Amino acid sequence: MARPAAPSLRERLRVVDAWDKAQARTLYAADWQMPGMLHAAVARSPYPSARIRQIDTSRARALPGVAAVLLAQDVPHNTLWTDVPGQTSEVGPLRARIQVLAHEVVRFQGEPVALVAAETREIALQAAELIEVQYDPQPGVFDPEAALAAGAHQVHEGGNLLARLAVRRGDPDRALAQADVVIESVNRCQFIDHAYLEPEAGVAWIESDGVLTIRVSTQVIEHYRDVAEVLGLPQNRVRVIGTYLGGGFGGKEDVTVEVFLGLLAWRTRRPVKMIWSRQESLLARPKRHPFILRYRTGAARDGRLVAQAVDLLADSGAYAYLSALVLMYATVTAAGPYRVPHVAVDARVAYTNNPPTSAMRGFGAMQMVLGYESQMDQLARRLAIDPVELRARNALAKGDELPIGQPLDTHVAVIEAARRAWEALGPRRAPSTPAHRIGRGLACNIQPYGRIVWLHDWASAWVGFEMDGSLVVRTGTPDVGGGQAASLCQIAAEVLGLDPGRISIHIADSALTPLAGTTTATRQLYMSGNAVLRACEGLRRQIVDVAAQMLETHAHTVALAAGDAVTQDGRRVSLPKILRECARLGVSRSHLAVYHAPAGDPVDLERGGGRVFPDFTFGAHAVEVEVDTETGAVTVLRHVACHDVGRAINPQSVEGQIQGGAVMGLGYGLMEEVVLDHGVNLSTLFATYLIPTSLDVPDVEPIIIESGEGKGPFGARGIGEPPIAPPAAAVANAVDDAVGVRITELPVTPERVARALGLLGEG
Amino acid sequence: MARPAAPSLRERLRVVDAWDKAQARTLYAADWQMPGMLHAAVARSPYPSARIRQIDTSRARALPGVAAVLLAQDVPHNTLWTDVPGQTSEVGPLRARIQVLAHEVVRFQGEPVALVAAETREIALQAAELIEVQYDPQPGVFDPEAALAAGAHQVHEGGNLLARLAVRRGDPDRALAQADVVIESVNRCQFIDHAYLEPEAGVAWIESDGVLTIRVSTQVIEHYRDVAEVLGLPQNRVRVIGTYLGGGFGGKEDVTVEVFLGLLAWRTRRPVKMIWSRQESLLARPKRHPFILRYRTGAARDGRLVAQAVDLLADSGAYAYLSALVLMYATVTAAGPYRVPHVAVDARVAYTNNPPTSAMRGFGAMQMVLGYESQMDQLARRLAIDPVELRARNALAKGDELPIGQPLDTHVAVIEAARRAWEALGPRRAPSTPAHRIGRGLACNIQPYGRIVWLHDWASAWVGFEMDGSLVVRTGTPDVGGGQAASLCQIAAEVLGLDPGRISIHIADSALTPLAGTTTATRQLYMSGNAVLRACEGLRRQIVDVAAQMLETHAHTVALAAGDAVTQDGRRVSLPKILRECARLGVSRSHLAVYHAPAGDPVDLERGGGRVFPDFTFGAHAVEVEVDTETGAVTVLRHVACHDVGRAINPQSVEGQIQGGAVMGLGYGLMEEVVLDHGVNLSTLFATYLIPTSLDVPDVEPIIIESGEGKGPFGARGIGEPPIAPPAAAVANAVDDAVGVRITELPVTPERVARALGLLGEG
Repeated sequence: MARPAAPSLRERLRVVDAWDKAQARTLYAADWQMPGMLHAAVARSPYPSARIRQIDTSRARALPGVAAVLLAQDVPHNTLWTDVPGQTSEVGPLRARIQVLAHEVVRFQGEPVALVAAETREIALQAAELIEVQYDPQPGVFDPEAALAAGAHQVHEGGNLLARLAVRRGDPDRALAQADVVIESVNRCQFIDHAYLEPEAGVAWIESDGVLTIRVSTQVIEHYRDVAEVLGLPQNRVRVIGTYLGGGFGGKEDVTVEVFLGLLAWRTRRPVKMIWSRQESLLARPKRHPFILRYRTGAARDGRLVAQAVDLLADSGAYAYLSALVLMYATVTAAGPYRVPHVAVDARVAYTNNPPTSAMRGFGAMQMVLGYESQMDQLARRLAIDPVELRARNALAKGDELPIGQPLDTHVAVIEAARRAWEALGPRRAPSTPAHRIGRGLACNIQPYGRIVWLHDWASAWVGFEMDGSLVVRTGTPDVGGGQAASLCQIAAEVLGLDPGRISIHIADSALTPLAGTTTATRQLYMSGNAVLRACEGLRRQIVDVAAQMLETHAHTVALAAGDAVTQDGRRVSLPKILRECARLGVSRSHLAVYHAPAGDPVDLERGGGRVFPDFTFGAHAVEVEVDTETGAVTVLRHVACHDVGRAINPQSVEGQIQGGAVMGLGYGLMEEVVLDHGVNLSTLFATYLIPTSLDVPDVEPIIIESGEGKGPFGARGIGEPPIAPPAAAVANAVDDAVGVRITELPVTPERVARALGLLGEG
Repeated sequence: MARPAAPSLRERLRVVDAWDKAQARTLYAADWQMPGMLHAAVARSPYPSARIRQIDTSRARALPGVAAVLLAQDVPHNTLWTDVPGQTSEVGPLRARIQVLAHEVVRFQGEPVALVAAETREIALQAAELIEVQYDPQPGVFDPEAALAAGAHQVHEGGNLLARLAVRRGDPDRALAQADVVIESVNRCQFIDHAYLEPEAGVAWIESDGVLTIRVSTQVIEHYRDVAEVLGLPQNRVRVIGTYLGGGFGGKEDVTVEVFLGLLAWRTRRPVKMIWSRQESLLARPKRHPFILRYRTGAARDGRLVAQAVDLLADSGAYAYLSALVLMYATVTAAGPYRVPHVAVDARVAYTNNPPTSAMRGFGAMQMVLGYESQMDQLARRLAIDPVELRARNALAKGDELPIGQPLDTHVAVIEAARRAWEALGPRRAPSTPAHRIGRGLACNIQPYGRIVWLHDWASAWVGFEMDGSLVVRTGTPDVGGGQAASLCQIAAEVLGLDPGRISIHIADSALTPLAGTTTATRQLYMSGNAVLRACEGLRRQIVDVAAQMLETHAHTVALAAGDAVTQDGRRVSLPKILRECARLGVSRSHLAVYHAPAGDPVDLERGGGRVFPDFTFGAHAVEVEVDTETGAVTVLRHVACHDVGRAINPQSVEGQIQGGAVMGLGYGLMEEVVLDHGVNLSTLFATYLIPTSLDVPDVEPIIIESGEGKGPFGARGIGEPPIAPPAAAVANAVDDAVGVRITELPVTPERVARALGLLGEG
């Protein structure tokens, strides 16, 4: 049951770090310094596929100021397991290995081959250049379809098929054959980069007690375990402290600099700093998975869906990373937020010699939106049904099941979101010139929040009062700039009747803050939020019991408000007085709580049944675009983004997430693309990898629905990832509406539109 | 009930930080650096008593590179309350104020007047010199007896008597009048300095979340509250991180650089470092209290004590600091570890214009040893009773009461300690020349451990397993070099059946490690030890319950040993397997515990009754000295130090504490003295303030008694302070034994011995 909305949750709280960030006082990972610190660099492969014949480090080692040069053979365990980070070791078949430093073979351009630590960054970079590697270039494979063809170059032993998932529900073949109409399409989405403003960076040092400490820009402080594994240390000898992030978006979910820093600090016994350049970050870090999305959708004449057959093929690049999990997200959400009686999903992900792909905001579920919402749009056009009405006839509702069999046990706001987003577009604008056309597009989406249930997710938090009644919240939660810390303070404020300004929060220290898991998978408001909620409820009980004694009444009649305990008849005692009494009585003034997400059995994709995710967030975006029929340029004039967030905790942050996600989704839809030529990355500068500026996007209008039925605190749902997913499909649908051509490959560049309009001839 | 001694507690564990310290890799407080860091200096009064007419900072502010100059009026709350740090605010009448920066008046030489922060340390020091202060020197008072005389200069409004305590038990006047023998003496002990190798230092900065963070060499991380009070901040906005200490000994119990750093960092919004020079440290930091000890002791002919009248007068210097508490320790222990039916203690402490005095290892109880053990020695001589035998006839025993009425509810090992120490001296050596004389002296002592019971002491700890079965212990306990961290690891190892090498510990972070109170008052093994014990016991229950399920047996039949859970019939499951099962079941792998010391009512000194301290540690030191009758030089040839430590946890640390304390006690007895001339400190260099080198002291032989009856974990008692107390009295008694003169004033310098021997004439 949802609780009533609380006034303090509605406060538009300035996030605690905003002022320092605005003044450039925030110490990001790269800003940190340590006495006697070395600087590190990575030597990387120039080839996407090659064998290493020989490495000569003598010139690098001879360079004055070089403290260490490390190769694969210097790494105690040259294997980094890329299982689900942190929470459990039960993932089993999803575990897949990457090499820390290339040994004998390189599989993608930019793969790390050697590490250097030196007295200055300049010397380190120069030494990296002086490492002489003799490569034998090998044939490679650069496309997932080619990778799965017979006789393809094998990226790894065991073949290029990394993972395969299949869902069957009902009899989709027969249902499709009998459908009144069938829509068929192939869409392709591209490699993109996280393109955060802050590249990967960190500093490592060894504390006097022999604990390797790494201060790093990361979404996952639990990578201390990976560092321990590579270095052959017990896990308690590695500590990761997360900094404020200049952007993460999943790109700082995998290990970045941590292991390299750990190796160099452990070898040199000195502090070491590593900062990746922009080129390095764009060159070699995992990207978003490109997918080939083949959809066939059958419907009755009234628009009701009867069947869907989906074939998905994703490119994992040279290593597995989280590809198998990304494929799970894609498979579960492939049919979208719609009721489809007969479904077949066949999903595969293949190795290539492209850069690896891994986590990125939206994580597999996002790419599907282009598939299912293109189908819906085409179906609406074919049947001449209003796009909102078509969605309304098919939208899932609470009590329905997804094709995999998971029941939806909270409110499904798709219809309401679609209507409100569409209506908020308002009157249709006139085109700015006769050569321009106006079009509108709608895209709804379903995005899980929280981790796959058989991973046994948990989060913990420890809250305590100071003697003056101010509160300290401690939790491992990294704040990736999404306002995670501020939201947790607001939850504490609500439970304990405090002004949020009376609360400070310490986050993201793997040794000293209670672990709260990764800031990924749209899970922190849900998981850390529930942990903070429980910790505060426990603390509240302790405090209220003592206050009730002091006020000579029953605890259940005492409320905490404005820093006092108050009885129903208005008698008060202040927090500092209660806390002194706690000290006298030996009652603890702090509380540590662990929130365990409800467990579940692994889903059976073939037979249906079971649960994959704790819950989902639903939404819809509507856009109005103007297309220049002479150039193919698409300008988004209006963008309305509506999501059911369950309960908006700090509405300012929620709106920020929605607007930021929508803009990022527009970048994906309109301009972002990592261009690869046979595995060689042509997009390693912001001059060649374009991201939207404030001039490229409209003022996104966020609309918040509060169903109160989410599984987070006070009925909140996660909203970190969902808003990124609909814009690309909405834009493609709007372009079709404007100029009657369907762009099936992202991004929707002027070139592609112009080509579709016949302005450039066939390409 | 004591538990059986555990083998793992006997391990002679190398403290975890030893290797780094030996390699000079430890980052002490002064070694820390921060980006953009300023350097700070303090401008201090050259006068011990003066009024400030005017301060001109214009030249200082004009110096290039100066970032801030602060005076008293720049301090939000220019008052630092010197109550018992950290644990509670219930101390009431003991609270006394010092000024953060001198306002209108200076009361001792070296009192801080202004602060400077600048780009370099050199500029900061130069700017401090450029601050022009016009003083009107005032008369002062430099001796506590003079301070209490009529018409004395008033150091503070309200008179120079800072505190007075009195104990009455029985009818001491009548009993003294009727005693067979009465011994009367006046002893004087001196100002001394803690003289640690590491002067006061720290670095402060503001974290991005607006938390003022201070990394400092301190015994008391709870001073974050004092910084918050002075700066007018909520307590949750200040965080103190304690570093490894290069010595504390009570000198880093009071605030040192913390508030100054906080003020400057808050004002400049930049990181600031402050390091005090050796001169500054010796000049202006609080010293040990000098006492005038007037004793009259009455005894029966068989040596049994019948009465004692004690008059104590201590010099608090210019401010109160912890003087009232020091006086309490002195008063409670004034009669020593002896049964005295009729007792009167009158104790006073007075303000003077000398440097302030405050906490130092031994804390009031130490100074008393010279008083009561000189009396015992003189009584033994008068009655021709063997000194050990005289102590044996009078020693307190379990079940007895102290004069204040506190019952002794654990073993009292005075007789055993005296016998073993005395016997271990072995055969008497021959003098090295005819001009030398050999003598032996004995001194027993009683020293509290743990804090005064009405202060409601508590400590907390949070322990948790990593997935690989390694353990992390977290507790606020500062490690002052006494091996506190290693002992806590050993306690955890014992409870959880782990090799101590599988444990890492994080300490002394006021925001992130559970508060454990001050590393003072010989309380950490008792308090933090009990907190870690309870946390580990709680964790053990959680783990064993799961292991029992896995092993299909009852939890009470499962032991933890060598990283496994083991059943009585030898079946095993490893910790990593148990921990994975905990994750699956949602059972927490960590435990947070708070240990509250048993409370007690404030003692009634006048009427007797009540409890002051949790418990006491007893011991005895025996020394053999050689006195040069031509120069007065005293050489200690043998030194045996025996204490009942209850249970020796890490015997190597215990022996280190005993040896270190004994050597420090010899420095007090033989050479250390802060020489003051009308309040002007003449001992501000190690050239003029002499401390013992390894050539000045014998190889102290520690003897450990393990009664198993202490109130710490496994029956341990505190041993931090006790060993410093007996040496001075033992040396004075040995000199009397050797050459028949009694030195009544410390230190026992060659000059004093020579004067007593008539070599220099009357002085």
